[in-house]
Amino acid sequence: MSSFRVRTDLALEVRENMEESARECRGVSVEEEYREESEIRITRVVIETMNGARAMGKPIGTYITLEAPAMILPDEEYHEEISAELAVQLKRVIPGLEKELSVLVVGLGNRDVTADALGPNVVDNLVITRHMMKEFGKAAYDRKRIHMVSALVPGVMAKTGMETREIIQGVVEKTRPDVVIVIDALAARSTRRLNRTIQITNTGIHPGSGVGNHRNAITQDALGIPVIAIGVPTVVDAATIVSDAFEKMMRLAGEEPLEIQDDLFAGQGELYNMYVTGKDVDYEIKQISHIICNALNSIFE
Amino acid sequence: MSSFRVRTDLALEVRENMEESARECRGVSVEEEYREESEIRITRVVIETMNGARAMGKPIGTYITLEAPAMILPDEEYHEEISAELAVQLKRVIPGLEKELSVLVVGLGNRDVTADALGPNVVDNLVITRHMMKEFGKAAYDRKRIHMVSALVPGVMAKTGMETREIIQGVVEKTRPDVVIVIDALAARSTRRLNRTIQITNTGIHPGSGVGNHRNAITQDALGIPVIAIGVPTVVDAATIVSDAFEKMMRLAGEEPLEIQDDLFAGQGELYNMYVTGKDVDYEIKQISHIICNALNSIFE
Amino acid sequence: MSSFRVRTDLALEVRENMEESARECRGVSVEEEYREESEIRITRVVIETMNGARAMGKPIGTYITLEAPAMILPDEEYHEEISAELAVQLKRVIPGLEKELSVLVVGLGNRDVTADALGPNVVDNLVITRHMMKEFGKAAYDRKRIHMVSALVPGVMAKTGMETREIIQGVVEKTRPDVVIVIDALAARSTRRLNRTIQITNTGIHPGSGVGNHRNAITQDALGIPVIAIGVPTVVDAATIVSDAFEKMMRLAGEEPLEIQDDLFAGQGELYNMYVTGKDVDYEIKQISHIICNALNSIFE
Amino acid sequence: MSSFRVRTDLALEVRENMEESARECRGVSVEEEYREESEIRITRVVIETMNGARAMGKPIGTYITLEAPAMILPDEEYHEEISAELAVQLKRVIPGLEKELSVLVVGLGNRDVTADALGPNVVDNLVITRHMMKEFGKAAYDRKRIHMVSALVPGVMAKTGMETREIIQGVVEKTRPDVVIVIDALAARSTRRLNRTIQITNTGIHPGSGVGNHRNAITQDALGIPVIAIGVPTVVDAATIVSDAFEKMMRLAGEEPLEIQDDLFAGQGELYNMYVTGKDVDYEIKQISHIICNALNSIFE
Repeated sequence: MSSFRVRTDLALEVRENMEESARECRGVSVEEEYREESEIRITRVVIETMNGARAMGKPIGTYITLEAPAMILPDEEYHEEISAELAVQLKRVIPGLEKELSVLVVGLGNRDVTADALGPNVVDNLVITRHMMKEFGKAAYDRKRIHMVSALVPGVMAKTGMETREIIQGVVEKTRPDVVIVIDALAARSTRRLNRTIQITNTGIHPGSGVGNHRNAITQDALGIPVIAIGVPTVVDAATIVSDAFEKMMRLAGEEPLEIQDDLFAGQGELYNMYVTGKDVDYEIKQISHIICNALNSIFE
Repeated sequence: MSSFRVRTDLALEVRENMEESARECRGVSVEEEYREESEIRITRVVIETMNGARAMGKPIGTYITLEAPAMILPDEEYHEEISAELAVQLKRVIPGLEKELSVLVVGLGNRDVTADALGPNVVDNLVITRHMMKEFGKAAYDRKRIHMVSALVPGVMAKTGMETREIIQGVVEKTRPDVVIVIDALAARSTRRLNRTIQITNTGIHPGSGVGNHRNAITQDALGIPVIAIGVPTVVDAATIVSDAFEKMMRLAGEEPLEIQDDLFAGQGELYNMYVTGKDVDYEIKQISHIICNALNSIFE
Repeated sequence: MSSFRVRTDLALEVRENMEESARECRGVSVEEEYREESEIRITRVVIETMNGARAMGKPIGTYITLEAPAMILPDEEYHEEISAELAVQLKRVIPGLEKELSVLVVGLGNRDVTADALGPNVVDNLVITRHMMKEFGKAAYDRKRIHMVSALVPGVMAKTGMETREIIQGVVEKTRPDVVIVIDALAARSTRRLNRTIQITNTGIHPGSGVGNHRNAITQDALGIPVIAIGVPTVVDAATIVSDAFEKMMRLAGEEPLEIQDDLFAGQGELYNMYVTGKDVDYEIKQISHIICNALNSIFE
Repeated sequence: MSSFRVRTDLALEVRENMEESARECRGVSVEEEYREESEIRITRVVIETMNGARAMGKPIGTYITLEAPAMILPDEEYHEEISAELAVQLKRVIPGLEKELSVLVVGLGNRDVTADALGPNVVDNLVITRHMMKEFGKAAYDRKRIHMVSALVPGVMAKTGMETREIIQGVVEKTRPDVVIVIDALAARSTRRLNRTIQITNTGIHPGSGVGNHRNAITQDALGIPVIAIGVPTVVDAATIVSDAFEKMMRLAGEEPLEIQDDLFAGQGELYNMYVTGKDVDYEIKQISHIICNALNSIFE
């Protein structure tokens, strides 16, 4: 099977693409909810054991997916029903919210590439309070519980010459937050999910996916504090789209795709590092950034 | 043949993809040159007759392509050898340069989508002189021949609610330039050509290609003055990439792709309005914008 | 008096700065309201006669000012109370809203200078519908009254080489809207008003102010259709700030500033084309753009 | 004297504004050069003793100023003569260039405020090599001496909630460069110098100036490695411009400004945090960013 070249950052899609039998594997639990009024589907995949992790190709932890087709439609209220639901789900995975928390929000990705600018866009509109608390103290606020929010847009390696992880580690060691929240653009398998889906996980970020490659992972292991990741699929790998279209066509033609495909794909090297996006990517990314930003602001205000 | 869904805006690629026999069609002439020192290949396709236009699916006119693989490499001199060659080729198609010319440069595309921002980026760095000439007259310049340059970034229909052509027509009627130069991002058929190729044509812009659809064309017919288009392929249609990968694989497998493909493609509707770009699109677009901008500035200074 | 170098685009400030006696001039009526709950002060200055126009140095028409100190504070609801009030006031001056209206919204100013980017920012987030109505017709909408919204960011003369008025005239002649709404950043006299004040007027835009200079005015006279202007003071002229500080100091020192000042100012030529802004100008402009955009979207949805 | 409210970040202006006698103070040496052909004036102020530091209100170190009026004029060669001269002067203060050096370039300032975006703009166009060297090693380059360049845009405290110094310290400790180069927008005293002057110093950055305030200084003391600062005055403090205009006028009026001014200024609190910029600030910042970026690229290529 051509799975090595089919890429998805969504635990939800990994599971969908497993064979029927494999889905029932031990060590992975799945719950689904559907909100009628807001048309939001919430799927909660929990990988509980190393067995489950191997089967899924993702680390042990919780993966919550919100699917909301309305996300990309214009809305005067900026889809506050999605923001509200996102806040509810985030509160379930961010540890320590009952106390006063110091949170570092990290906007990953490249500000100058529309589909990759989700993280920086979210951070641009966040209410930042750590410096105010440091300067004026809690007394300046008329509240009984105050969190401190700081934020960082580290940039991508091609523009910094540094691993994103190095930058975050350095800043975490110096400013000592209690938890890190990273926002990132993901790759989906299906174009249907682009910019309509938000994934929350407490396993951090694993560039290049797979459980093996730990070198640049942005995780609790690497930073010493919990790392919550919020991701939105904004692109599909070009190789994935070709591979999937191929399988679909073969199936329609009643042929068996599996054997020949790998050799055939050898010739597709030029698809490496190529991505598929939609033509309204700028508008859609702006909408989703608002939704995520409003959810975070409401949690930490 | 699946030609209806394979899209390219490059006359060069249309010709490459014609069957051997069809290439020799009357009414289309082709010349090639190669500059050893700068590694620039220049192809000049001239469609001379309606017959040629039908065969090529492009209007009668001249199409000059510069292919320069170096275009996307870093360079301290901003690839002035490519700018210089581009200026040479542009001077051959811009009519009236021997006199004093009033030129309106139009940067088409969406400023907020990286791969579509080529036109706006070029205009952002252009030396604009029309207002100076209007205010201070030719006396202010120590030259014997002065052109007047104005520029416009009309925006895309989704953001203006107006046809780009309507906006340009209105501005042309009001400000009366002698010639319009439009800069636009194009779709190529092959990822190999992305951001390494510049096409110049004196036929203007034909959105959706094909010779039939005249409704929104930005051409001498529509504006009443010559329209020179400078285009760079920055994306490949997702449907095109799938279709081409499919054909290539079928050919490798020794099968004949032509008959079954059309039906199979019926299921690929979700690829509509999806585009493929490379991950360094921001850097590459910036480089090419510089090259085009420098060429224009050198012609009109 | 040094009035020739004290600049304000706000009718409100013109009136404030008039001598007590002059304020009672015939031909100018003033009404004030104050909204307790939202802390918005609304001042409605109507210049009714040529006499009034001469006294005020502004054309005959209505000038409504909303002063809302809260405008620059962070707010999760994006200050919807200010948006709502702005919509109420706009509805009083936009003619034809009871019918279906075709509106062209024009975002004046320079996108690349933070304090001047208000107009482009508002337009970037507007819901655009004209092209949808043209393509799908009213049937596509489940409403009994549908307006058509189009939008334009013409850019500034230094970057286009064209008068902004020429561009707007051309587009209006081609696309035939019923009314034009222009959004622009203004100059205030007092730093206290920066980014806390919105002025609505049905007299359009008069660059360089004064009733005399008609050359580049964007008005009903120039365009043949009503022109509503929405302006926000985002800068103070450097010469104005110096002049005002000087007067204030002289007054504190018990001296009479009027006679000597003009000569003294002759040496201040280097303040020409210099502007004063605050250090949070980026955040404040973003907030106000949201407020204006939301008001317009609610009127035309 | 009102010196407490007159602010300049330029050592050159500090010295100009000293009384004639004070200029000859021990511990401060000054050299001037003028390049006829490029019209660049180079002033080298060296503060050698604590005495000199107190007199100048600036730390011990070298301050090199390039004044080049041509800097803001359009130029097809991007003012390579100024870049070249800047590179010459930088090589005199960057220690260790004879070896292979790992350099971290930090672009200070706020990307969203035009006059403050100089640092981020320079970094955006820098050739970054550290990650390539780490991945491919020196062998990948056909050179005998290779420097490693990394870059960071930390953002401003209002948007990060963190001291810029904390972020840089964290990143320096993690990535261990040999030297840090910080680029920042400065405040000048005179509008004449805006965007026409580049200051290089080996003393780093001292926010709020003065030798006393060490809390947030970005210096060799704070980072443990040499810190070279490249600064360009892009704004004048509003209070400074008022104060200077006042003095000039009083002097023209034959009066003695010194005694009364301080009290009078008490009323000018609203000028706090207000800045003066020119109307072409976007164009000028873009030009200078290019000049600085080209100089750095030529040193480290």
